[in-house]
Amino acid sequence: MKIDLFFTPNEVKEEELNNQAVLVIDVLRASTTIAYAFHNGCKDIIPTSSMDTAIELSRKIGRDAALLCGEREGRKIEGFDLGNSPFEYEAEKIKDKTMIFATTNGSKAIVKGSVGLSLAVGSFVNFQTVADYLNSNSNDLSIVCSGKLDQFSIEDAVCGGLYIDALAKKGVRQLNDAAYAALRLYQVYKDDLLGMLRKSSHGRYLIELGFEKDLLLCSEVNSLQILPLMNDGRLVRAL
Amino acid sequence: MKIDLFFTPNEVKEEELNNQAVLVIDVLRASTTIAYAFHNGCKDIIPTSSMDTAIELSRKIGRDAALLCGEREGRKIEGFDLGNSPFEYEAEKIKDKTMIFATTNGSKAIVKGSVGLSLAVGSFVNFQTVADYLNSNSNDLSIVCSGKLDQFSIEDAVCGGLYIDALAKKGVRQLNDAAYAALRLYQVYKDDLLGMLRKSSHGRYLIELGFEKDLLLCSEVNSLQILPLMNDGRLVRAL
Repeated sequence: MKIDLFFTPNEVKEEELNNQAVLVIDVLRASTTIAYAFHNGCKDIIPTSSMDTAIELSRKIGRDAALLCGEREGRKIEGFDLGNSPFEYEAEKIKDKTMIFATTNGSKAIVKGSVGLSLAVGSFVNFQTVADYLNSNSNDLSIVCSGKLDQFSIEDAVCGGLYIDALAKKGVRQLNDAAYAALRLYQVYKDDLLGMLRKSSHGRYLIELGFEKDLLLCSEVNSLQILPLMNDGRLVRAL
Repeated sequence: MKIDLFFTPNEVKEEELNNQAVLVIDVLRASTTIAYAFHNGCKDIIPTSSMDTAIELSRKIGRDAALLCGEREGRKIEGFDLGNSPFEYEAEKIKDKTMIFATTNGSKAIVKGSVGLSLAVGSFVNFQTVADYLNSNSNDLSIVCSGKLDQFSIEDAVCGGLYIDALAKKGVRQLNDAAYAALRLYQVYKDDLLGMLRKSSHGRYLIELGFEKDLLLCSEVNSLQILPLMNDGRLVRAL
């Protein structure tokens, strides 16, 4: 097994994802929020590459048929049902519902990654469940970090390194430079993930916006057992 | 002083370079080769964003007026005078000459970075001279790593971390996520820079092409005292 990691979706050349399993990571907060949405019973999630695509899709399938979810600059988009904080995705609001999901970085990365053979969404909170799935899969793996506005985010790199650390024990043959770097960064920060989130550029911004408690939630490794997989343009809960 | 680092030129938004000092790094091999070219007496270097631009410029100013230098996929471009190995830039070939320089990653990064207030080209070999210049400069700094085909390169990140390590001792106020990560990666690899180069994706490729001795040369911290600075579209030796 070969693992390539990309620090931003822009670094990914789509042809490189052919015949690859894909793991998309957006720790703060899309991939954590997706895990919590499935934990609280949502039916499926349609990721979109832009706010406009999400609104158009909502018009097409009807506003009652799906919740409109997403953020710009960390805040809920005006007129949308939910933002991008995992705390908003409570069972009473989302149980058995379809969600159209438009976040600045994560949902765009998912759409880009969906050309791969398979696509899983990973975070710290559902690490072991997703890692077990990737381990059972013999395909080469591409890890797409969502980053922030096509720039590097430390939290996605460190989380990618956690997955590589687990998979490397199972006979990985080759890592690209970014995968090596992510593994090293995970080793540097693994004993203080919350501290790393607090110090990260996006973490500091979320604290300013009043989302400090989101950081604690997002830093909790293996708090959920959820495997979100892409299936025909929609994320579903496979485990 | 604030330091932002970018792992690839693509991550840089040009407006972010306004009012910034810029340091461009391409350890393997453009920024090392540039330091050796000045060490061996070349007059100035005109970096270009593409092979075609270099050829066009060469036609315009006359083939005798400037050497045509550069590589594609690590090899000298057919019809060019020199490739991108520092060993090719011997005094008898380049003394007092102008060089038009078209490499895949480094010269493109230099052209992109040249919208900044100032632009220096740094590598391991001329570290202290460039770091002293940056230290004497009170502007915020953007470090642009050249990467490889718009993807992350570990050697440029580690070299960026070396500069940040030196500047951080002089009261840097703020680092972006990538600058933090580069600093950490430097701390991981600082005792074995040559080993890091040998293991890097581009290093392995250069070894395959027969350029193994270039790696040793590129890993030698402070072997030269050279300060290449951009001046009106040309790199000149300022020290």
